[in-house]
Amino acid sequence: MKDTIKVFAPATVANVVCGFDVLGFAVNEPGDEVVMRLTNKPGITISQITGDEGRLPREASKNTVSASVQHYLQHLGRTEVGLDIALHKKMPIGSGLGSSSASTVAGLFAVNELLGRPLSTRELVPFAMKGEELACGYGHADNVAPALMGGFVLIRSYQPLDLVALPFPDELYAAIVYPEVDVPTKDARQMIRNKVFLKDAVTQWGNVAGLVSGLFMKDLDLIGRSMQDVLVEPVRSILIPDFEKMRTLATDAGAAGFGISGSGPSVFALAGSRETARKITFELQNHLHRININSKSFVSQVNAEGPKVLD
Amino acid sequence: MKDTIKVFAPATVANVVCGFDVLGFAVNEPGDEVVMRLTNKPGITISQITGDEGRLPREASKNTVSASVQHYLQHLGRTEVGLDIALHKKMPIGSGLGSSSASTVAGLFAVNELLGRPLSTRELVPFAMKGEELACGYGHADNVAPALMGGFVLIRSYQPLDLVALPFPDELYAAIVYPEVDVPTKDARQMIRNKVFLKDAVTQWGNVAGLVSGLFMKDLDLIGRSMQDVLVEPVRSILIPDFEKMRTLATDAGAAGFGISGSGPSVFALAGSRETARKITFELQNHLHRININSKSFVSQVNAEGPKVLD
Repeated sequence: MKDTIKVFAPATVANVVCGFDVLGFAVNEPGDEVVMRLTNKPGITISQITGDEGRLPREASKNTVSASVQHYLQHLGRTEVGLDIALHKKMPIGSGLGSSSASTVAGLFAVNELLGRPLSTRELVPFAMKGEELACGYGHADNVAPALMGGFVLIRSYQPLDLVALPFPDELYAAIVYPEVDVPTKDARQMIRNKVFLKDAVTQWGNVAGLVSGLFMKDLDLIGRSMQDVLVEPVRSILIPDFEKMRTLATDAGAAGFGISGSGPSVFALAGSRETARKITFELQNHLHRININSKSFVSQVNAEGPKVLD
Repeated sequence: MKDTIKVFAPATVANVVCGFDVLGFAVNEPGDEVVMRLTNKPGITISQITGDEGRLPREASKNTVSASVQHYLQHLGRTEVGLDIALHKKMPIGSGLGSSSASTVAGLFAVNELLGRPLSTRELVPFAMKGEELACGYGHADNVAPALMGGFVLIRSYQPLDLVALPFPDELYAAIVYPEVDVPTKDARQMIRNKVFLKDAVTQWGNVAGLVSGLFMKDLDLIGRSMQDVLVEPVRSILIPDFEKMRTLATDAGAAGFGISGSGPSVFALAGSRETARKITFELQNHLHRININSKSFVSQVNAEGPKVLD
């Protein structure tokens, strides 16, 4: 068996506008990489983190990657295992693209491979959720489930955890733009009201059902029409510069649908071709540049496979 | 062209437990019949209503069938048309099975056939919604859309009206039991709270998405797991005798899922065979009989075609 492995895990777009806390999908880029090595000394060491500008904890008990791997080892009764972890962040932290999720998923996938795959990929989801709890105070699954399983994933239920892998159109591209302003997930969650009008909730689940139908029917127009959020977006979009203007620009450039990725500040659009997705990111970045906001962009087909072993 | 037509339109199960106001499906029985005849005198006359125990208005402007047909004729600019309508109620009124919807849909389908089908079946939905507004004070579509289109229908949006016909398993049976207690739709709606907890709404749309996925995947188990309603059922079930006991009996008899049909008091279960559905209605009626409540039951495959011309 190999004693060293390098794993890539994808960024993810949680919520997919209307599906707050229950939907997410993975993209081919960006993503994070973990290099993991079996050692002779029990316990986990983080020997290196790159690309985080010193923002992530190096202490194994506090870092989400090592903490969730630790949890996994305890569950399997394999606490004699020694691991050295190098984490290479290749995506922005706090961007709303499932940064902590990508790292955690890469780590869990890596250790599971090193130990000869005792658990299925789907069975890793609860361990990754523990990592999310540590990262943002709330063990949600709408990033980690698609990061592990690839594609679009529905979290039908949290108690018990019930995951449904959804199909999607073959030609489906995400245009992602990250305006470099800071919106921590914790704060973004606290802005959301505890109570909502039932009539708004009905509007929302009509759209959630429409989005799921559109994915099964591979109907990009229905997918786009369903990407409306009357509950969370009106609040969260306040933190995102010129959100409505960006929606107009994305739509004019051919986006099927547009919205906030996870808790923001990244925004994303779905489009039927790479060319359209490129046009969308170009227009949005151009606008952000005009209002003096730095941004990063990513154009990617929806990721169908989840994490992968590199080399 | 024929000058007389007899049309059957199906009963419907609105909400399908978790999909309040956005989902419904049609059954093969029960249903209502309308006999419609072109006359020489402009205007609509209701010459006969049977099976309603005198409860429905005979006056054309107040009866939902004639009022929605009138609306249809006005829309087409065909107010010179004269019609005689006989309505044969073959299902209980106020039962939660879309009784007014079945009558209205039969009437609209009949007049559209008599006039040479100027509108598609789907285009009749808004006219039928007008009838619902008259019948229960609220122009919902979760009975009339499946009654007209057959099968399971999603109302993705009301403004604008956006309907999605959903697939369903080939072998899918509804077991319906109507306990003969009175629960008018208007009162049942007024019991529902205006505001709900966001966390409950999230649970609900996870289930709505699961139900839609289960229908596309023809996965009866997923359909059943998703038939949970944390928002409306806890309130409405108070009006239904021994609701939780009936759920247990239905589940023990093999129901995939169980809940209230529309605003009740009818309850329904979905099952994978006619035999299981029969067993469910038997157990439920037996129990209602023991607690001295009269009931009616219906076992039917999901209706795939909507209204049909008889004879």
